[in-house]
Amino acid sequence: MKMIQIIVFIFALISYTSNATSSAKDFCVANLLIPTTPSGFPCKPQSLVTANDFVFSGFVAGNTENRFRLGVTTASVQNLPGLNGLGISAARIDVGFNGTVPMHLHPDASEISIMVEGQMIVGFITPTSLFVKTINAGDVFVFPQGLLHFQVNSGSGTAVSFSAFTSSDPSMQVLDELLFGNSLQTATLQKTTLLDPQQIMKLKAVFGGSG
Amino acid sequence: MKMIQIIVFIFALISYTSNATSSAKDFCVANLLIPTTPSGFPCKPQSLVTANDFVFSGFVAGNTENRFRLGVTTASVQNLPGLNGLGISAARIDVGFNGTVPMHLHPDASEISIMVEGQMIVGFITPTSLFVKTINAGDVFVFPQGLLHFQVNSGSGTAVSFSAFTSSDPSMQVLDELLFGNSLQTATLQKTTLLDPQQIMKLKAVFGGSG
Amino acid sequence: MKMIQIIVFIFALISYTSNATSSAKDFCVANLLIPTTPSGFPCKPQSLVTANDFVFSGFVAGNTENRFRLGVTTASVQNLPGLNGLGISAARIDVGFNGTVPMHLHPDASEISIMVEGQMIVGFITPTSLFVKTINAGDVFVFPQGLLHFQVNSGSGTAVSFSAFTSSDPSMQVLDELLFGNSLQTATLQKTTLLDPQQIMKLKAVFGGSG
Amino acid sequence: MKMIQIIVFIFALISYTSNATSSAKDFCVANLLIPTTPSGFPCKPQSLVTANDFVFSGFVAGNTENRFRLGVTTASVQNLPGLNGLGISAARIDVGFNGTVPMHLHPDASEISIMVEGQMIVGFITPTSLFVKTINAGDVFVFPQGLLHFQVNSGSGTAVSFSAFTSSDPSMQVLDELLFGNSLQTATLQKTTLLDPQQIMKLKAVFGGSG
Amino acid sequence: MKMIQIIVFIFALISYTSNATSSAKDFCVANLLIPTTPSGFPCKPQSLVTANDFVFSGFVAGNTENRFRLGVTTASVQNLPGLNGLGISAARIDVGFNGTVPMHLHPDASEISIMVEGQMIVGFITPTSLFVKTINAGDVFVFPQGLLHFQVNSGSGTAVSFSAFTSSDPSMQVLDELLFGNSLQTATLQKTTLLDPQQIMKLKAVFGGSG
Amino acid sequence: MKMIQIIVFIFALISYTSNATSSAKDFCVANLLIPTTPSGFPCKPQSLVTANDFVFSGFVAGNTENRFRLGVTTASVQNLPGLNGLGISAARIDVGFNGTVPMHLHPDASEISIMVEGQMIVGFITPTSLFVKTINAGDVFVFPQGLLHFQVNSGSGTAVSFSAFTSSDPSMQVLDELLFGNSLQTATLQKTTLLDPQQIMKLKAVFGGSG
Repeated sequence: MKMIQIIVFIFALISYTSNATSSAKDFCVANLLIPTTPSGFPCKPQSLVTANDFVFSGFVAGNTENRFRLGVTTASVQNLPGLNGLGISAARIDVGFNGTVPMHLHPDASEISIMVEGQMIVGFITPTSLFVKTINAGDVFVFPQGLLHFQVNSGSGTAVSFSAFTSSDPSMQVLDELLFGNSLQTATLQKTTLLDPQQIMKLKAVFGGSG
Repeated sequence: MKMIQIIVFIFALISYTSNATSSAKDFCVANLLIPTTPSGFPCKPQSLVTANDFVFSGFVAGNTENRFRLGVTTASVQNLPGLNGLGISAARIDVGFNGTVPMHLHPDASEISIMVEGQMIVGFITPTSLFVKTINAGDVFVFPQGLLHFQVNSGSGTAVSFSAFTSSDPSMQVLDELLFGNSLQTATLQKTTLLDPQQIMKLKAVFGGSG
Repeated sequence: MKMIQIIVFIFALISYTSNATSSAKDFCVANLLIPTTPSGFPCKPQSLVTANDFVFSGFVAGNTENRFRLGVTTASVQNLPGLNGLGISAARIDVGFNGTVPMHLHPDASEISIMVEGQMIVGFITPTSLFVKTINAGDVFVFPQGLLHFQVNSGSGTAVSFSAFTSSDPSMQVLDELLFGNSLQTATLQKTTLLDPQQIMKLKAVFGGSG
Repeated sequence: MKMIQIIVFIFALISYTSNATSSAKDFCVANLLIPTTPSGFPCKPQSLVTANDFVFSGFVAGNTENRFRLGVTTASVQNLPGLNGLGISAARIDVGFNGTVPMHLHPDASEISIMVEGQMIVGFITPTSLFVKTINAGDVFVFPQGLLHFQVNSGSGTAVSFSAFTSSDPSMQVLDELLFGNSLQTATLQKTTLLDPQQIMKLKAVFGGSG
Repeated sequence: MKMIQIIVFIFALISYTSNATSSAKDFCVANLLIPTTPSGFPCKPQSLVTANDFVFSGFVAGNTENRFRLGVTTASVQNLPGLNGLGISAARIDVGFNGTVPMHLHPDASEISIMVEGQMIVGFITPTSLFVKTINAGDVFVFPQGLLHFQVNSGSGTAVSFSAFTSSDPSMQVLDELLFGNSLQTATLQKTTLLDPQQIMKLKAVFGGSG
Repeated sequence: MKMIQIIVFIFALISYTSNATSSAKDFCVANLLIPTTPSGFPCKPQSLVTANDFVFSGFVAGNTENRFRLGVTTASVQNLPGLNGLGISAARIDVGFNGTVPMHLHPDASEISIMVEGQMIVGFITPTSLFVKTINAGDVFVFPQGLLHFQVNSGSGTAVSFSAFTSSDPSMQVLDELLFGNSLQTATLQKTTLLDPQQIMKLKAVFGGSG
């Protein structure tokens, strides 16, 4: 930790304690320097809050030069601290031609997805059903919390959508990264997924897993 | 009520009761024909749910030929029943040149606003502070729940933003309509707002109020 | 910050950390010296809690010698720390003859109001309806969360009511103070409320606003 | 069930189903004729709601001519249907000279108690502590959810307090009625409380228990 | 629907409506014949509730003669209606020698797992970490909500554990059934998971998927 | 407080502040050294979390050599910090021959009880009803939140059950300890429970109360 951070931290503590009427009235802007809690980050002193705490200015296309041709730009409590405690955040999803948002889920959030440009096949899966639709600009789709889902660019150019989530700091869990991006042993993975060892090892090589 | 609705309603009841394992697992698509509850609408039987319950296809610019040059198109549980119980919805806001989203609030929802096109001055107000920013495409702003806020088109053309709300059926309350759009007596209004009677009567004429 | 506060604060930290079984069992009395969170203040160590943490002794008539002849006395987590995390608080409202509780709202709380003395016209407003009643001692009224409401003393003497709120630290937002008590520019206010500039400037003078 | 109730009920169903935009926006007044849910009663159609749904007019002293000289008058969702879904209600407690609110608890609500007249010894109990205070008019006390508590009139006349609860329909559970007001066998009660059988039988006689 | 069910249903409606003081006080036993809501099933009339509504008597070993040698017996609101609205349920998990609880997740519940007999390797996965432990009788493990997890019998006999969930009707989602048990097209699955087509088709054959 | 604890505490603070991306994603393991909040303990930095934070290894029979022949072993956030914020915990209850779980309640949790060995009479009480059942191994019972309940070993040997609670740190409140284990004056207790003074003094002697 840099000395400057320590000073800021101590300053923040002192700022709080100097004001006996600390409160979360009207809003609770995150103090990202203090440990978070199950309900969110502690609040910045209201006297230090400015309009900038309620704005994020980099909601632009992310880099799509990768395996899935996928760019994700997130406006969460981490860069928009005014979201703290409000249970909402947003993301811009850019999917290049022939690209995809791979099979993934958000364990802590439902997602409402607004199609802005292009065309995508979207879907989510439950134990009893599969729900798939082709959507275009002007369509809105919803992925209920915790369900495995995917988006495939089915148009002739880039596809762009804006999503909002029912969490101020949602978790994005790509299935391949969960299965093949860590040290989970191939034998255990085979046993619990029935995937063939060769398949597992092939994808571990792709996603950086060992074991 | 048309006879067809009665038949659909009775059919819906029978559908439910014919399945002893009715459940809200994975999702709870709204049955809009049955009275809603504090937690949302009762769930459609899972056997009647299709992918269409999770899509809304009219998320396009609303008509801006009105006093405020404001068009609002909403994707809520009323037209996207898959949102039921998830605590999220979306709206497209179009504001014509020189137009505005007038002073308003949502008593039941925080709002995250993604600036898509043009430029707007946005702000919200608390008893102790005023927070105002000029935002452009690529900016995201948040209005905490229940706070009075406004947006003013400050650009040279139409301004467009997409908002998401922490309610599947948020209430949009325009201040002028609350104050001047009903039968609240001028004397009472004067006494509780200190507005001049002439001002009140002038705006009652605009917003259709009596009294 | 006074040195004594620093010492108390450090003492509080040490008290906590000296007890590995810190818990929020049964209750969580607010430690007002530590930053609050979206769920409320951190808890005082149970060993420091006394019966006094659950009592507030100044629930008496507030001063009504002001513009609205309104006195408000609040029992909230700020002076009754045992309320922390419980989602409830109380206020005593005294309204002098011919006085009023001006148009206001609580963005974070519903209010149940018990009429104790005198007579008041009470009301709240939604986009589609106005609900107004004249109530007397022995009547109970409810103002749902986030809705604009008002009370007018319609009796021949002082009116007194006791309210409880669904928040341990509710926000009281008087409409005039929101609109006219800060630096929001007259032009912006005119545009978003359609109030006349003269009206705005007149009330800015009353409520201390600039711009 | 009277025929009139059936007709009202069917009318209510039809009213709902005749309006495709049924909603719980702004408030959800209880329809007490339809089965309640864990989140509260289903909502009345907004078109049938009037200001009377938000008022209860019998908040007066209850009858204190009983064993404990205790009168309790409750304003809950059962007689103030506008409270539905709001998580708050109120009660007026009158305790005659030398009377008491016997040892009891509310499993589903915290209680904030405003002392209006007279003097009471109030207290609540946790496994590790006893919190007792003598309070007078102008004092506010809080009883956290689920904790055993009591009030004893310690003044020279009637004591009156107004309480609010964090439930729109709280449960009042008097310890003596739980232990001695039903058919729980004396042997079982003795074994699980260590009370003597004579004591148990004596109080069963008082509170109407058998076994 | 059998005629008897219609009669029971109408009887239930009438039972409710015949009692103007319907309430969810103390508990809300599920009426499984009426459509569920986001907060759970509507409540049975209290006059029809018996002790049997709070008991489930089949919490015994499930059949393990299947692919994974896995038996799951669930005590949920579907067979223990007293759980309604309480946000908890239980399951008994039996895993035969060399068997497994395959990779799965619960989108709506955290799980606490009590090891009763034998030995298991248990684990869950996040985007940044893998948490794996070998547990024996007398160990308790927790799987946070929505995270992919698995259990492998690593002992010399049957392994038995009892789990509780933070939902009264949790969803069990086995990854293989989600991916390979429905009509999701092989090409889409390949694109969104990078699994080889042969692997996909092989497992579709196992889990009954088409496409 | 030992010096080592101070050092650990300061280290923990520094660990947090050194990581600008502190988050509660996926889970929030309790940092038991920092004051708890109404939503639970602040989270340990994710970089310090290990699989051991999700295991408790002492879930074995507690000592039953006491008045009630009752042993309770708890797996709560205090010894299983991965439970933090998840709203669940577990306990093992051993009741010797002729023993009992005395009359008690949990003000903050519902309880689901799995009968593992032996036979018990279980019951809970509401103001209007008594629910009692004899249960055996393979039965599951539920005690709704805040209700007074008891278990009596009615078998010929030890009875064992596993319970889960809807709180990560539930409060166990034995009625006798509440009434007779503190300094509540005999006169006050007599007045609020109608128990005879001799009975009160006799049990105060047993449970260590004074007054």
